[in-house]
Amino acid sequence: MVTMLPSPRPTCIVLFLISVLLIGPGGAGHYEPNWNSLDARPLPGWYDEGKIGIFVHWGVFSVPGYSQFSEWLWYWWKHDQRADVVQFMKRNYPPDFKYADFANKFHAEFFDPNEWADIFKASGARYIVFTSKHHEGFTNWPSETSWNWNSMDVGPHRDLVGELAAALKKRSLRLGLYHSMYEWFNPLYLSDKASGFKTQHFVAMKTLPELRFLVETYRPDLIWSDGDWEAPDTYWNSTQFLAWLYNDSPVKDEVVTNDRWGLGCYCKHGGYYNCADRYSPSKLPDHKWEKCQSIDTRSWGYRRDMKFIEVMDLPSIIKDMVAVVAMGGNYLLNIGPMADGMIAPVFEERLRGLGAWLQINGDAIYSTTFWRNQTENNTVEVWYTTKNSTVYAILLGWPSNQPFHLITPKISATTNVTLLDYPDMRLKWKPLTPTDGLMILMPLMPPSHGNAWTLKLEGVA
Amino acid sequence: MVTMLPSPRPTCIVLFLISVLLIGPGGAGHYEPNWNSLDARPLPGWYDEGKIGIFVHWGVFSVPGYSQFSEWLWYWWKHDQRADVVQFMKRNYPPDFKYADFANKFHAEFFDPNEWADIFKASGARYIVFTSKHHEGFTNWPSETSWNWNSMDVGPHRDLVGELAAALKKRSLRLGLYHSMYEWFNPLYLSDKASGFKTQHFVAMKTLPELRFLVETYRPDLIWSDGDWEAPDTYWNSTQFLAWLYNDSPVKDEVVTNDRWGLGCYCKHGGYYNCADRYSPSKLPDHKWEKCQSIDTRSWGYRRDMKFIEVMDLPSIIKDMVAVVAMGGNYLLNIGPMADGMIAPVFEERLRGLGAWLQINGDAIYSTTFWRNQTENNTVEVWYTTKNSTVYAILLGWPSNQPFHLITPKISATTNVTLLDYPDMRLKWKPLTPTDGLMILMPLMPPSHGNAWTLKLEGVA
Amino acid sequence: MVTMLPSPRPTCIVLFLISVLLIGPGGAGHYEPNWNSLDARPLPGWYDEGKIGIFVHWGVFSVPGYSQFSEWLWYWWKHDQRADVVQFMKRNYPPDFKYADFANKFHAEFFDPNEWADIFKASGARYIVFTSKHHEGFTNWPSETSWNWNSMDVGPHRDLVGELAAALKKRSLRLGLYHSMYEWFNPLYLSDKASGFKTQHFVAMKTLPELRFLVETYRPDLIWSDGDWEAPDTYWNSTQFLAWLYNDSPVKDEVVTNDRWGLGCYCKHGGYYNCADRYSPSKLPDHKWEKCQSIDTRSWGYRRDMKFIEVMDLPSIIKDMVAVVAMGGNYLLNIGPMADGMIAPVFEERLRGLGAWLQINGDAIYSTTFWRNQTENNTVEVWYTTKNSTVYAILLGWPSNQPFHLITPKISATTNVTLLDYPDMRLKWKPLTPTDGLMILMPLMPPSHGNAWTLKLEGVA
Amino acid sequence: MVTMLPSPRPTCIVLFLISVLLIGPGGAGHYEPNWNSLDARPLPGWYDEGKIGIFVHWGVFSVPGYSQFSEWLWYWWKHDQRADVVQFMKRNYPPDFKYADFANKFHAEFFDPNEWADIFKASGARYIVFTSKHHEGFTNWPSETSWNWNSMDVGPHRDLVGELAAALKKRSLRLGLYHSMYEWFNPLYLSDKASGFKTQHFVAMKTLPELRFLVETYRPDLIWSDGDWEAPDTYWNSTQFLAWLYNDSPVKDEVVTNDRWGLGCYCKHGGYYNCADRYSPSKLPDHKWEKCQSIDTRSWGYRRDMKFIEVMDLPSIIKDMVAVVAMGGNYLLNIGPMADGMIAPVFEERLRGLGAWLQINGDAIYSTTFWRNQTENNTVEVWYTTKNSTVYAILLGWPSNQPFHLITPKISATTNVTLLDYPDMRLKWKPLTPTDGLMILMPLMPPSHGNAWTLKLEGVA
Repeated sequence: MVTMLPSPRPTCIVLFLISVLLIGPGGAGHYEPNWNSLDARPLPGWYDEGKIGIFVHWGVFSVPGYSQFSEWLWYWWKHDQRADVVQFMKRNYPPDFKYADFANKFHAEFFDPNEWADIFKASGARYIVFTSKHHEGFTNWPSETSWNWNSMDVGPHRDLVGELAAALKKRSLRLGLYHSMYEWFNPLYLSDKASGFKTQHFVAMKTLPELRFLVETYRPDLIWSDGDWEAPDTYWNSTQFLAWLYNDSPVKDEVVTNDRWGLGCYCKHGGYYNCADRYSPSKLPDHKWEKCQSIDTRSWGYRRDMKFIEVMDLPSIIKDMVAVVAMGGNYLLNIGPMADGMIAPVFEERLRGLGAWLQINGDAIYSTTFWRNQTENNTVEVWYTTKNSTVYAILLGWPSNQPFHLITPKISATTNVTLLDYPDMRLKWKPLTPTDGLMILMPLMPPSHGNAWTLKLEGVA
Repeated sequence: MVTMLPSPRPTCIVLFLISVLLIGPGGAGHYEPNWNSLDARPLPGWYDEGKIGIFVHWGVFSVPGYSQFSEWLWYWWKHDQRADVVQFMKRNYPPDFKYADFANKFHAEFFDPNEWADIFKASGARYIVFTSKHHEGFTNWPSETSWNWNSMDVGPHRDLVGELAAALKKRSLRLGLYHSMYEWFNPLYLSDKASGFKTQHFVAMKTLPELRFLVETYRPDLIWSDGDWEAPDTYWNSTQFLAWLYNDSPVKDEVVTNDRWGLGCYCKHGGYYNCADRYSPSKLPDHKWEKCQSIDTRSWGYRRDMKFIEVMDLPSIIKDMVAVVAMGGNYLLNIGPMADGMIAPVFEERLRGLGAWLQINGDAIYSTTFWRNQTENNTVEVWYTTKNSTVYAILLGWPSNQPFHLITPKISATTNVTLLDYPDMRLKWKPLTPTDGLMILMPLMPPSHGNAWTLKLEGVA
Repeated sequence: MVTMLPSPRPTCIVLFLISVLLIGPGGAGHYEPNWNSLDARPLPGWYDEGKIGIFVHWGVFSVPGYSQFSEWLWYWWKHDQRADVVQFMKRNYPPDFKYADFANKFHAEFFDPNEWADIFKASGARYIVFTSKHHEGFTNWPSETSWNWNSMDVGPHRDLVGELAAALKKRSLRLGLYHSMYEWFNPLYLSDKASGFKTQHFVAMKTLPELRFLVETYRPDLIWSDGDWEAPDTYWNSTQFLAWLYNDSPVKDEVVTNDRWGLGCYCKHGGYYNCADRYSPSKLPDHKWEKCQSIDTRSWGYRRDMKFIEVMDLPSIIKDMVAVVAMGGNYLLNIGPMADGMIAPVFEERLRGLGAWLQINGDAIYSTTFWRNQTENNTVEVWYTTKNSTVYAILLGWPSNQPFHLITPKISATTNVTLLDYPDMRLKWKPLTPTDGLMILMPLMPPSHGNAWTLKLEGVA
Repeated sequence: MVTMLPSPRPTCIVLFLISVLLIGPGGAGHYEPNWNSLDARPLPGWYDEGKIGIFVHWGVFSVPGYSQFSEWLWYWWKHDQRADVVQFMKRNYPPDFKYADFANKFHAEFFDPNEWADIFKASGARYIVFTSKHHEGFTNWPSETSWNWNSMDVGPHRDLVGELAAALKKRSLRLGLYHSMYEWFNPLYLSDKASGFKTQHFVAMKTLPELRFLVETYRPDLIWSDGDWEAPDTYWNSTQFLAWLYNDSPVKDEVVTNDRWGLGCYCKHGGYYNCADRYSPSKLPDHKWEKCQSIDTRSWGYRRDMKFIEVMDLPSIIKDMVAVVAMGGNYLLNIGPMADGMIAPVFEERLRGLGAWLQINGDAIYSTTFWRNQTENNTVEVWYTTKNSTVYAILLGWPSNQPFHLITPKISATTNVTLLDYPDMRLKWKPLTPTDGLMILMPLMPPSHGNAWTLKLEGVA
């Protein structure tokens, strides 16, 4: 279609269209559509306080659910034409089978949003980030601009985003929406791409209308943008969108965003920083950040061929989460539900295990901030967090010798030590040096599937 | 999406977009985008000379191919929810089956465009009108604006329009493209409709780009517009499209159009007139017209449950066609191929039968015009046509008595009568009255599966 | 299983079982289980009188319905592994697709046995031969010994044999059941075959129980045996079965059989002779015979890719039938219904055309016998039949010259000639020689889609 | 079929057939085909020594894998027509969908028998019992008498039994074959049943040939018979089969059987006793027995809608197993693999957890026998086993007080106590009374996901 348009006018039209679409007639907000202004917006507090989120990857890709290709299967199959994926498809599907045929099999017959929300609640997470649309372009809500390629027209025949949003709300869990800017094989996108992103028909007709619809309909607390990297933010009109989001949208006060808003944006612009997938900073970042990590170490979406050995065990998850929080980050733990709507028991076990640990140790996590020192050399791994004047030392493993030496805290006359498992039992301790460190007499080890325990230190510095 | 657009600007934008799209930078054609100007364009001559076309209805609807609902099945099923269609779907398909699932089964595995074209050629037709897109919106060519809902992405995985166009061209058959303006369930269209057709997003993003692409890519000789009736031509921007088509398109000199360009247009504006389906005027129309008629009397698309008794036999077809031509019309005879790409033998039989009849009687049809009298009262049905100074009397049935009386022609000294079956045999005749009518001694009846014979009259008036 | 049986006892057991199964406790019939006795049985009269039957090939094979492979597709695909069939399957079906998967698609949703029977009745046929089971082994009735491989358990979920039998009965049409002795891929059969047909487990457990069930349940007037050729009749226990059929079965008086009862039997033993498929004897056979011929010249089962040109036209069918009857044979004209239960209109047209012809000319066919001369050299093809003292000369084409000479009949004083089309009009004729032959003045040619007319000759010899 | 057989002979024939089939020409074994003789056979030693087996339920039922109906879905759906199952099928499958259609979807594309065997090996189990055929009748091996209803013809297109057998053998794991005598819907069986089990055609043609084939081909160490309860053992010819199995089969020396060989047999005849499913005796049985228990507490076959909460955790499994072994039983722990061949990670986790526990505590399980007292009243649950002169006290939970009192053992001068986790560390203890009981000073609690530890007591009585 685009090739029929005499240049150079279309871009102007589209830009005009976009401004009409987003800015509105009398839009006079606090934020200007440029990064200087937008980056200056303070992050709404609930996000840093919540610390822990659950990432949920669900879509048509959950149907083939094959190998590490998983949610990228279409791309590896048709774009890169990787021999192994091509072979898999050939061996298991009819000759003219196309990716869209998987949508028929995305039945979601066992999907119960309340059951999901109960599990999420039990995990101790405070927000959920759900794939409203992944790079395949299939929208998990009834989108007007995605005819026959959305969860109401095809497959589940349900508004997955809407149903989940309602269930989360009932349990006071925050809703985040993952949204892929690009769609690998959308011909409108490919046409813009072929123009060197000089045309913006895809953005005008698809990306922005859909983002706006999502925000106005489901009122998410968080937008987890992705799939931005092939084009600059000027193509996506990201700053205009964010200005509208922060100034005029119904979620302007509470909404949190991440940093994937165009080529070169990540780790630099937007709300909090995701930087790369599974980002693990080696020193304390100076901007709020989030690590996303999948329980299935090889995939975000469900893999039918996932093996037990590839699944993180609970101690690894807690260890990972504790280190992230101690370094000032949020932890977004991912699961991929199955195409029929079930969450694999092994995932539920991890989520409930995490929740059980947080039930005891949550004081050391929620609403805390990083401490002056984040960790120290010790016989077991130790991470510190702090809240008000309390310091928490989280031990990843039970010390094998008595007494246990904590090196970093400075002691005082009011110093008091407890183990969060036994909140009423003061532990005996002695100073390690006159001013620094404690030698603590540890109690009988309390059971912990997480293999991690927290010492609560009051009156230390 | 449209609801997000603050009014009243969008229409302006879209109109601007449309003018850019169609008129072009330096467009300075002969025709103005208004009916006065457009209606004044003379019809390219090939159309009236050709007389006979084949209409071909093929699409996703060919898969269910059920009953008189046929190509309208989706509509009756989901829009009107007719009990019989709902029941049929329930009884024969899975509970969550949706219309789009039929596309997978539109295999076209036996589709051979050259074989089709051979049959069409053998029928004596001079042009073919092929459903490039019916009301279901499925495009029989790879459309950029119909992702996953076109014959390249789904089902046949082929460019049906393109393949057929090439095969027709090789045989000097003219290509006509049927095109439905509206798409029952396209959400963009439904959204425009909900606005009372004040917005035109569907037209800007779908109808016009696709029409333009069809014209520029396949260079059709005829555009058979349909599905226009819910909205005025101003919504469809029909006059602008036609002005572009007549002034600037690559087919501007040869292209023929019909009259379905918006609510109230039919039988009034455009190229030739189709008026209603199966239109049969009772007196000579004053504008070139066309009757379309399906061999399967109950359906345009293929019906799997078609019975022999519902199929027109050859004499009925020839009778219908002869009357139409004698009344100045063109005859567009319809078949619906099967989903696998075969033309049912009973249809092929009719087409080849028609061709065999035209092989002998074609002089009385092609390039003729209506005569001063079109018919007369007689013992067998008689229709007249004329070409140059020759008059043809086509008898629908063999007269049972000798001699046979023809009433209307005025005789002269040079009057000469032959039967087209025996072109070299002058028939004996005598005047009926001194000036009018002939009593003709008929020869031995020649075999005719069509049950129709032509008397060629020279030197009559 | 069979390999586990210590030899040599099983054969004895099976034979014992078979005799118990068939002969019954007090069985004392007229026919002995040997060919001398069985071949001496007179053929029930209805068969020779009826002359014309319709053969109906319907089964799982109707689903792929591909090419001349048609009902043999499974065999060519899996046994011979013909490259073209293998390729077709590969291109159009999933990698692990097996033949049994076609059964799911044998929906028969439009199958109306009364409509079929109406068409058969209208064709003028007097008996129908229906494939109760073809070589694929799928039984078109609910067989206890064909679990999951019969039309009640799978596909149609109906008793096709039973429903058709009832509909035929209502119209006084005779029911014939085609039955394949062997089943290409039945492991019991293959195991017997591997033993050099020394074991008979397949016969004991499958063939005989099913034949007996068919006979007792549906009471067929005719059994059209097939698929016998790999094993001698002693393997099939054919003589025992026939003895039971003729002596003790509920159809013993009326039942007719053919000649395919084991290797070497055909054209030699049994009821009437089919000899090879499409058998056309060059001189008068001395045993009642039948020619079976398919309207689709390339297949017995329905071929989805059947083309018009491969379909016999009505004159060819009538010509073929007339010659067969004149030579003392019966004519079994075949059609293959589609998997959805429809009879293709082109087949219905032929059947109804045949019926229309027989409506006029049936006297020359039904209940006739061959005449002393069957044909003669003439300007049009002429075949003779006779009934009582009347002789019929059937002309395959209309003579182009007057008068028409008939050479063979001897005339007499009472000789009278009529054309069956005008039964009340005595035709003028003169002797060709004083004793032999007639010169007949033919009337105006009556219309005949069959291109065949009958002269009725009385008082000739 | 059977109804055609004149009575009363067939039973005689079948019995004769069965004796030929099983006893063989010169069969002169030690065991007579009666329970007195068969029950006297000593159980091969490997079974009691092995203690722990894995039960594997896999078949067509794994495809729907729905709810507690699971492997019984067909029965509840079609036999009992339970409203909930009927509703589930209606909602999720096409109208004419039949159970056999599930077989197509039993792909087993990820089935790797070596991976399974590795997991089984890691679990510490010594034998595997695999469903060669469940009540649905689908054979997981290529059976000649189950045409189109076996894993080679349909679905996996593999010999599942054979592949698994080979993989187990490589790891010295014993192979047990579960085999259902009856098949709910096999028409041969239903016909025998309709006769009040007076006819035995199903047994002669299906049950016995298949059992014999399984034994001779895969040489199982154990036959786990089931589905026997509708008919007496005389119908099944169980005693004849067992006599052949014990006397003449290739596994006669090592093979172990259970007790489901006909109505009234269970807990009374055969090899070891299963008695009812999940049998838990309240006092020490006087015959070797086995408890089978599924990790998924609601189903033997895989349930796609299994929830975490319905899955046994490791401590429950170990507790259950320990009690069974202490009571003289074997423990057969069940899992249901998925239709694609994967073992759900949550099951693998349990199996590997069990193996890890046995790695430390296996001495208290394998090759032990029950002790004079099996348990005692204590602050934690305690179960005893013994081997040679050693007594093992298995504690299900860690005692909360020091020292821990063991009541039942009689002490001696040589009494020695260790914890199996610290095999080299002698624990300090004091007598509870001069002759009976120990007060043991427990060491630091070793980690145990199983929540169970073993005290090894030497020199006690």
